[in-house]
Amino acid sequence: MSAGLKGIRCAVIGGDDRELYLISELQQQGAYIVGVGFEKASPISGMTLAPSLEEAVGQVDVLLFPLFGTDECGVVKAKYSDSPIVLNKKVLEAIPAQVPLVIGFARPDLKSEANNLGIKLVETSRLDELVILNSIPSAEGAIQMAMEATTITIHGSNSFVLGLGRCGWTLAHMLKGIGARVTGVARKPSDLARAVEMGLHAVDFANLKDEIGHAEIIFNTVPHQVLDRLMLEKVTPDAVIVDLASRPGGTDFEYAQNLGIKALLAPGLPGTVAPKTAGRILAHIYPQLILRHLTTVNTTCKVEV
Amino acid sequence: MSAGLKGIRCAVIGGDDRELYLISELQQQGAYIVGVGFEKASPISGMTLAPSLEEAVGQVDVLLFPLFGTDECGVVKAKYSDSPIVLNKKVLEAIPAQVPLVIGFARPDLKSEANNLGIKLVETSRLDELVILNSIPSAEGAIQMAMEATTITIHGSNSFVLGLGRCGWTLAHMLKGIGARVTGVARKPSDLARAVEMGLHAVDFANLKDEIGHAEIIFNTVPHQVLDRLMLEKVTPDAVIVDLASRPGGTDFEYAQNLGIKALLAPGLPGTVAPKTAGRILAHIYPQLILRHLTTVNTTCKVEV
Amino acid sequence: MSAGLKGIRCAVIGGDDRELYLISELQQQGAYIVGVGFEKASPISGMTLAPSLEEAVGQVDVLLFPLFGTDECGVVKAKYSDSPIVLNKKVLEAIPAQVPLVIGFARPDLKSEANNLGIKLVETSRLDELVILNSIPSAEGAIQMAMEATTITIHGSNSFVLGLGRCGWTLAHMLKGIGARVTGVARKPSDLARAVEMGLHAVDFANLKDEIGHAEIIFNTVPHQVLDRLMLEKVTPDAVIVDLASRPGGTDFEYAQNLGIKALLAPGLPGTVAPKTAGRILAHIYPQLILRHLTTVNTTCKVEV
Amino acid sequence: MSAGLKGIRCAVIGGDDRELYLISELQQQGAYIVGVGFEKASPISGMTLAPSLEEAVGQVDVLLFPLFGTDECGVVKAKYSDSPIVLNKKVLEAIPAQVPLVIGFARPDLKSEANNLGIKLVETSRLDELVILNSIPSAEGAIQMAMEATTITIHGSNSFVLGLGRCGWTLAHMLKGIGARVTGVARKPSDLARAVEMGLHAVDFANLKDEIGHAEIIFNTVPHQVLDRLMLEKVTPDAVIVDLASRPGGTDFEYAQNLGIKALLAPGLPGTVAPKTAGRILAHIYPQLILRHLTTVNTTCKVEV
Repeated sequence: MSAGLKGIRCAVIGGDDRELYLISELQQQGAYIVGVGFEKASPISGMTLAPSLEEAVGQVDVLLFPLFGTDECGVVKAKYSDSPIVLNKKVLEAIPAQVPLVIGFARPDLKSEANNLGIKLVETSRLDELVILNSIPSAEGAIQMAMEATTITIHGSNSFVLGLGRCGWTLAHMLKGIGARVTGVARKPSDLARAVEMGLHAVDFANLKDEIGHAEIIFNTVPHQVLDRLMLEKVTPDAVIVDLASRPGGTDFEYAQNLGIKALLAPGLPGTVAPKTAGRILAHIYPQLILRHLTTVNTTCKVEV
Repeated sequence: MSAGLKGIRCAVIGGDDRELYLISELQQQGAYIVGVGFEKASPISGMTLAPSLEEAVGQVDVLLFPLFGTDECGVVKAKYSDSPIVLNKKVLEAIPAQVPLVIGFARPDLKSEANNLGIKLVETSRLDELVILNSIPSAEGAIQMAMEATTITIHGSNSFVLGLGRCGWTLAHMLKGIGARVTGVARKPSDLARAVEMGLHAVDFANLKDEIGHAEIIFNTVPHQVLDRLMLEKVTPDAVIVDLASRPGGTDFEYAQNLGIKALLAPGLPGTVAPKTAGRILAHIYPQLILRHLTTVNTTCKVEV
Repeated sequence: MSAGLKGIRCAVIGGDDRELYLISELQQQGAYIVGVGFEKASPISGMTLAPSLEEAVGQVDVLLFPLFGTDECGVVKAKYSDSPIVLNKKVLEAIPAQVPLVIGFARPDLKSEANNLGIKLVETSRLDELVILNSIPSAEGAIQMAMEATTITIHGSNSFVLGLGRCGWTLAHMLKGIGARVTGVARKPSDLARAVEMGLHAVDFANLKDEIGHAEIIFNTVPHQVLDRLMLEKVTPDAVIVDLASRPGGTDFEYAQNLGIKALLAPGLPGTVAPKTAGRILAHIYPQLILRHLTTVNTTCKVEV
Repeated sequence: MSAGLKGIRCAVIGGDDRELYLISELQQQGAYIVGVGFEKASPISGMTLAPSLEEAVGQVDVLLFPLFGTDECGVVKAKYSDSPIVLNKKVLEAIPAQVPLVIGFARPDLKSEANNLGIKLVETSRLDELVILNSIPSAEGAIQMAMEATTITIHGSNSFVLGLGRCGWTLAHMLKGIGARVTGVARKPSDLARAVEMGLHAVDFANLKDEIGHAEIIFNTVPHQVLDRLMLEKVTPDAVIVDLASRPGGTDFEYAQNLGIKALLAPGLPGTVAPKTAGRILAHIYPQLILRHLTTVNTTCKVEV
């Protein structure tokens, strides 16, 4: 598959170190890269820097935006640029209909705008495959945070994983591998059955309040407030909470602080703790994604994964 | 929950050693047991033996049939009985409307019959939770068969797991725990991503034909013929196949034999290799299932899980 | 190293299927093989069958006897022969001084005889490396026996490993990998510390009598009677004992039977359960062993490893 | 064993947070604690602070010095004190003959001095049990350092462990648990055999130079320079080295820096990364050690473990 992208022009827009690894990988597969927002990075041989997003969109076959998407004003975070990159209506209108716009998280207004304009929007945060692979650097980052924040070892600790989804399983697996006594907390009987098979102590969320007092380290992956006041009052003050759920997390952080419980929010770990691995993951998934969306030209827009 | 079934009358009809463990567990939780098809078992204190299925159905609150259900003539397998137990129309008509009929696999004609008669049919083979827990004795049984059939150790072997579903994951997990080099074969990108996370060699079914030649032991869990003639021709004759898919399995057994490949069908392992564990699993799941279906009285029948 | 044994003449004397794999491997490395005791095996291309042991010893550079050595009369077990092969004084006297005699277990009289005659005796059962590698098929064989003898799964069982030596660690590791709750029993504080690191429940032999009652499966590796009457009386009758210690094992088998406890002696597993793997292990170790002992010619005999 | 130290007076001299956990644990077992070097710590109820080491030695039954012992001038590191604590000849002379002096590492001059004075010196760094238990926080600390220093995940990385001793096994075990591809490097064939059993890629030190180029993360535990210039030249510049061997480590750090290889020395991790766990380990081992050395009163000094 080494030259599978031969002749395909990709705009890589903003992002962080992950995108540097991605660019290099796409180039190796034959792609021609137009970069937006990389003025401050070490020069990348073979990449053309576009002076602006507007000028880039007309020159390429596919647009690659970062995983975390844009903020509420449409600004794209770009670690290697000082000039703001904004994905606004004007830019959207300049995108040719057959050019897919690949982005991690798309805000509702971006979705509806793209829909109106007939733009093919590909939201990668919906790709199970990507989310599972990204759960690996996320879990390692969370474990690293726990190692830094505790005075005990993970090995032999009572570690709780709240939520056994795509990230929860990875965390549980690694914690067990390090030697922790892992409690897996879920609601679905099938997830609890799998937890038993994996050798976890399986606890239904309905019974969490009776068990949480044993926890020395708590990893939360549930994106709504499971660690609320009532629950936190049952947590021992020595415990450490690492919350991986997307902002604002699933913990009442203020109340935790009042109780003297160390609670940490761990958002966007892959790009921070292991940009090279996270870049490799993108590089593993994007080429096939690009090829798939270039060959099936849709005339009507819909959000696709 | 120790007396959660107090006063509830359960008919346990046929089955094997699992049912003996189940009966004892249900009794401990306070249930009153009417047995059908246990004349040859050691007497169980507190259990009433019903002379026939017809007489049992009118006396109880819930009917518990075995996991493997009935054969095409409605006969219920009963290890501890010599007289045939038949679940026929006459019996079905005798079941009071509010009495749930719990059974593992229900044949299509049983379903439609039950539907016509307004019987609440609960098909446990559809319970993810039960299937996952049963995958543990299944996987161990399959590994035991592989140990017996091979001249090599599982440790260090190239073991392939075809199909990463409820049973496939359990198998992969155990094989890895014993020290095998495990290849996980699946179709869904998200399953392949999870396989990578688990440390398996992840292979798409589309590429299986290029990889299968390395396999020393092959475990199949896919219920249609994936190990067909074309695939078997790529398998080394020393390899051993253990097929866990429900009859007739996913292997062309005749052709495998022609090629000199040892291929074994492994159906219904839990009750054979670890009846006590399999009984405990039923005893873990049935009380709550019974309570749930007794309290929510439906007047119309539908297949429920 | 593929032709590292070029020109070296090896006598392979008796043994079982392992030796067939060993012969083929030694041939691939360039050795010339003289076989004794293989008349009933399928003919092996390139191997010369010697009519008797006496005639073989004068023709070769090294003598390879089986792992289990000889019986008290000097008889060498040979699966593929009906004529007895005897390693007696006459044979020993015929061995040229520089020809190493490689054997698994050497009885005391063989040792003293060899010593008197100045024969270089290499006792492989003393090779830590070999014993550790052989512990892999031994452990798998023992686990297979436990699977066959129990009505429960290894997964989730309370499994005890008595003795944390070369075989004990392997067993503990595999049992944990399958999902058992493993108790490791040892005497040395450093072994108990390692057991803690490995995630086992670590128990000092001094406290075994207080813990053994929880065991569902007991694997013994200690070669003296640890499972004596007093200890067996604390074992639950449902438990299964698999004893891997060399004959007569570490269990009072008669008393176990009186108590209704299933107790199995598991001797010589590698050659039985996984002859191919066991043969590969020999083939991995013997070439270097042969080269080492051929190049350093000793004139005085001592038992070497 | 909760009051096993009742009436025993222990001097705890210097150290770090570990000693705080140790003190509390010894107190719970009934010991009376005299502290030296804890003026700046939060007051510990029930502990008497001795104004100086000289005054403490005459009042107690046992002297507990930190694991890292003294520096070349006899100074004892004390995190919670500003006044220097010196273990000099004058202090040694003041120690009553039957009072054991427990210390981690004892310098040669301390040993000979103690020997001359007939002091019972107990060097805990020689206790296999303690070293193995301490390898757990050490390994976690080293892995944490690797996580912080790399741009890749441990999961999926090629991680090398140089030296399979008490710390090496723990590291290998944990790295494998996180999902790394672990290469274990050792010299003894029995260690390499165990590495194979554990599922590591086993490499003899003699062949390390041919393999080291594949390493992405290198953990060294060998206390002499294995990562010398010749070896470092074969390491990829992206690799990260974490050296756990006691000062000065086993790496030519200056040369590594010249080559652009990130190399980190990781000494004394247990007390830094997981003081509570490290304190619990001391508290697990010291009570029995104290009792053993108090009951067997020796009149002549020898270094004991």
